[in-house]
Amino acid sequence: MSQENSVGRAVVYVKLKDGVLDPQGSTIKRALEDMGYQGIKDIHFGKMFEITFQKDVKSKPEDLIDEICRKLLTNPVIEKYNFEILK
Amino acid sequence: MSQENSVGRAVVYVKLKDGVLDPQGSTIKRALEDMGYQGIKDIHFGKMFEITFQKDVKSKPEDLIDEICRKLLTNPVIEKYNFEILK
Repeated sequence: MSQENSVGRAVVYVKLKDGVLDPQGSTIKRALEDMGYQGIKDIHFGKMFEITFQKDVKSKPEDLIDEICRKLLTNPVIEKYNFEILK
Repeated sequence: MSQENSVGRAVVYVKLKDGVLDPQGSTIKRALEDMGYQGIKDIHFGKMFEITFQKDVKSKPEDLIDEICRKLLTNPVIEKYNFEILK
């Protein structure tokens, strides 16, 4: 398989920025308390995207994934993200 | 700080099982194609929970987190999960 045809994989993790209200997290925390789990201090909810992409000889996968994160996957006002390119 | 009062952290990753329809993933893939990203082969959507918990000398954190995953955080019919306990 030539370089042009090879496929890459990345995982993007999206979290709410510190201080942003996390209703899903607090709801789950309260539900756990109601179920008797008193030891849970905090729960933060986040999203995850597993992306399979065609590798492009002309550009780095890091640049592609970062661009997609900024343009579509995240809301930079309230969310932060990081990603890893899987080998 | 004694063992009883120390705090542990875990991250849970929840994904749809293979073969389960992933409407969020396909919507994002289509949106990216419309935006001109033709090289995206596949996108899978997942959830992530960051949990901070009180460590309990009587039980292992792995057991607590696994129990919470099965009882509340995931739907075992369509979802699979894994987690890591952060040091």
